[in-house]
Amino acid sequence: MISLVERLRAELGPDAVLTDADVTDSYARDMMPLAPSGSPLAVALPDDVPGVQAVVRACAEAKVPIVPRGAGSGLTGAANAIDGCVVLVTTKLDEIVEIDPDNRLAVVQPGVINLDLRGAVEKHGLFYPPDPSSYDWCTIGGNLSTNAGGLCCVKYGVTTDSVLGLDVVLADGSLLRTGRRTVKGVAGYDLTKLFIGSEGTLGVITQATLALRPLPQAPGTLVAAFNATESAGAAVARIVREGVVPSLMEIMDATSIAAVEEHLKMEIGAGKGCAALLICQSDAGGEAARRELTAIEQVCADSGADLLHTTYDLAEGRMLLTARRAVLSALEVYGAWLTDDVCVPRTRIGELIAACERISADRRLRIAVVGHAGDGNMHPTIVYDPTSTDEFERAHLAFGEILEAGLALGGTVTGEHGIGKIKRDWLEREIGPIGMRVHRSIKAALDPENLFNPGSMFAME
Amino acid sequence: MISLVERLRAELGPDAVLTDADVTDSYARDMMPLAPSGSPLAVALPDDVPGVQAVVRACAEAKVPIVPRGAGSGLTGAANAIDGCVVLVTTKLDEIVEIDPDNRLAVVQPGVINLDLRGAVEKHGLFYPPDPSSYDWCTIGGNLSTNAGGLCCVKYGVTTDSVLGLDVVLADGSLLRTGRRTVKGVAGYDLTKLFIGSEGTLGVITQATLALRPLPQAPGTLVAAFNATESAGAAVARIVREGVVPSLMEIMDATSIAAVEEHLKMEIGAGKGCAALLICQSDAGGEAARRELTAIEQVCADSGADLLHTTYDLAEGRMLLTARRAVLSALEVYGAWLTDDVCVPRTRIGELIAACERISADRRLRIAVVGHAGDGNMHPTIVYDPTSTDEFERAHLAFGEILEAGLALGGTVTGEHGIGKIKRDWLEREIGPIGMRVHRSIKAALDPENLFNPGSMFAME
Repeated sequence: MISLVERLRAELGPDAVLTDADVTDSYARDMMPLAPSGSPLAVALPDDVPGVQAVVRACAEAKVPIVPRGAGSGLTGAANAIDGCVVLVTTKLDEIVEIDPDNRLAVVQPGVINLDLRGAVEKHGLFYPPDPSSYDWCTIGGNLSTNAGGLCCVKYGVTTDSVLGLDVVLADGSLLRTGRRTVKGVAGYDLTKLFIGSEGTLGVITQATLALRPLPQAPGTLVAAFNATESAGAAVARIVREGVVPSLMEIMDATSIAAVEEHLKMEIGAGKGCAALLICQSDAGGEAARRELTAIEQVCADSGADLLHTTYDLAEGRMLLTARRAVLSALEVYGAWLTDDVCVPRTRIGELIAACERISADRRLRIAVVGHAGDGNMHPTIVYDPTSTDEFERAHLAFGEILEAGLALGGTVTGEHGIGKIKRDWLEREIGPIGMRVHRSIKAALDPENLFNPGSMFAME
Repeated sequence: MISLVERLRAELGPDAVLTDADVTDSYARDMMPLAPSGSPLAVALPDDVPGVQAVVRACAEAKVPIVPRGAGSGLTGAANAIDGCVVLVTTKLDEIVEIDPDNRLAVVQPGVINLDLRGAVEKHGLFYPPDPSSYDWCTIGGNLSTNAGGLCCVKYGVTTDSVLGLDVVLADGSLLRTGRRTVKGVAGYDLTKLFIGSEGTLGVITQATLALRPLPQAPGTLVAAFNATESAGAAVARIVREGVVPSLMEIMDATSIAAVEEHLKMEIGAGKGCAALLICQSDAGGEAARRELTAIEQVCADSGADLLHTTYDLAEGRMLLTARRAVLSALEVYGAWLTDDVCVPRTRIGELIAACERISADRRLRIAVVGHAGDGNMHPTIVYDPTSTDEFERAHLAFGEILEAGLALGGTVTGEHGIGKIKRDWLEREIGPIGMRVHRSIKAALDPENLFNPGSMFAME
């Protein structure tokens, strides 16, 4: 009897199956240092749908678990290998199959890079909104599996809001087609949205039909600096209450600002004593954009902003966004980082930031607060010395205390990163035993042998 | 041993359990004449969540199926009784539990009337978009169960796009809480969207947390008359391609216009020789609305519109919407009606209308085409004489031929009404055997005894 690796090589060709530990190790982890990972038996890189089906069938027969993986930009360990598994990497299914400008949709394979899709549809005057921070290297497949968000969400929603249908290889190797090419459709259960965000536990996504939007107008950008984080939080809550819907509303605290200024050697103009910066954009165009940004300006002024600056200069707006997007990598000037993604009701942002300040003091760790203020989805990011076991342990504790604080404020433990292998216990705490039972029954129904990513998101027992 | 009816009376009180056939008959059908219906054993009207749980537990023990029901405005027979079932009516759970303007959300029970919710949130400057034609009498519970749409969808999506979380009574009587109160959240599978549109086959929705939007600006309205339906279809496709997103884009064909003019004794100004009317609105406000409507006007003129009229007068705009909304009831001047809700890619609307014209000629039946042109979701409506078996049979055949035409154009058999008891075979045709297997496995996982609405949407064997 041939071994599983031999069979995979026969099916996919020898170059598409990696077993050298030095190489497979680079497919064993994502970007979350806390999450456990194991050593895969092999890494399979099929380049077409029959190849994916062949891997699934071979692993099912051999009773070897499969961990599906995109680019590995995840922040929960969902794509981390488990011992003896096959890591099924979808990056070689990287074709943009179709762009249909007349019906505003695109059909893509999972390995397409988010940025490449954005660029390709932009040529047709179209817009694919989801823009996670890793958009220049993460794949659409990973975005679908985690239901990724980004800066766009305050106006345009998360990944699931841009998906019309999926092709998914199921645990028996069969190919399920969900959804449709029309913008509306209610035939049967919404299987599309069930697979989106299922983090590789229910099947392998091999194609997606995505809904596109018209390319928005060039954005106007507003920056407001506050000398107290509570004032910035209050401004966000008031903007929501006033009914303004900017296309972007981000917050950076003093630690984030300092890191970016040091890392990028740039002056973002927050000034001395600035505790928090709000960055807002409107892509409504013309007078509508001016109306929105004027309303936001007024609210920020009323909430005690020290400094207000609005620009319709694209380069300046882009520079501010670059600064915001650079926060995580900028924090590396201080050490390694761990980032949370709690999401709280928008009225509770100030309280969440205050909680992070308390945790930072208690645990004697630098915590930078940055995030998507417009939807209450915050990324408190803990900086630690990776060579110090003690600091790493305190960072781990702080990570959990931030989740705790988010739940206590009526929030969720994950706004856009997911559960993966790091927040399993937190999923149970958030959704309770009945929710867990329903999760397990759906998983058992679709993947009875627990083939896909076993133990990720939740354990079956 | 006491009977099920005695037990229900003991649990809910005698007035909440109806068994008189004259009365229960009025709960046995929805608005779709084609769908089969049976005689219920009883109709239960609990007024709180423990009451719903008591009905579910009692029926589960007695192995008596439950058909959940809202107001009965559905158009697929999903809420139609089956012989010997208990119809569980949720109209008495009719409380708006909370409106939170600061976080733009509302918590409601399923029996709240769509119009009542709209009015209540409007007082806070907020907007609940889903507006099915029956919005003045349908319930939120029914809207959730069918994932209802309406005129708003072209800009604001369907019901599922406005829901943050649900409470659902499961087949064992336990209460599942899905989702959250935050605008983002990806903890676990998206159970909220799985239950939305499940047409009462997976559980009974007892509460929903709904996302609200800021109240839009007062709309500007444009009407364009075309002397050929293909020109109207071409105009819709070009508006989509140009990247304009109106807040409403409806189409009425000559039959619809004539019915409304006769029924409402009003002149909607289509003029002689008008084959189709497009009604578009923009709620973007001010200059943005003018820009959108001017762009649409230009496309309509280029596509051969004979008559173009744009108004910012609210009363006139409302009158045009009233005319559009009156089509179905207006058709009753000619006889009874059967309405389809096929949804096709927006470039194929002209072809769908042409197919309906052919079917109308072949089957010698008046077919009015009206619908949500902006998302390709059309309601070809067949008029027939209910006293003529022959006409009813031809109407039935025409109903199926329209579904066939929709599928052949790359569409779906249902854009917003659902499958229910009328389109079961069509669900299977649309999604295929693998899709059906997944549906059955999820149904079996969540409702192993097939307690909820058995045989609706699909049969288990």
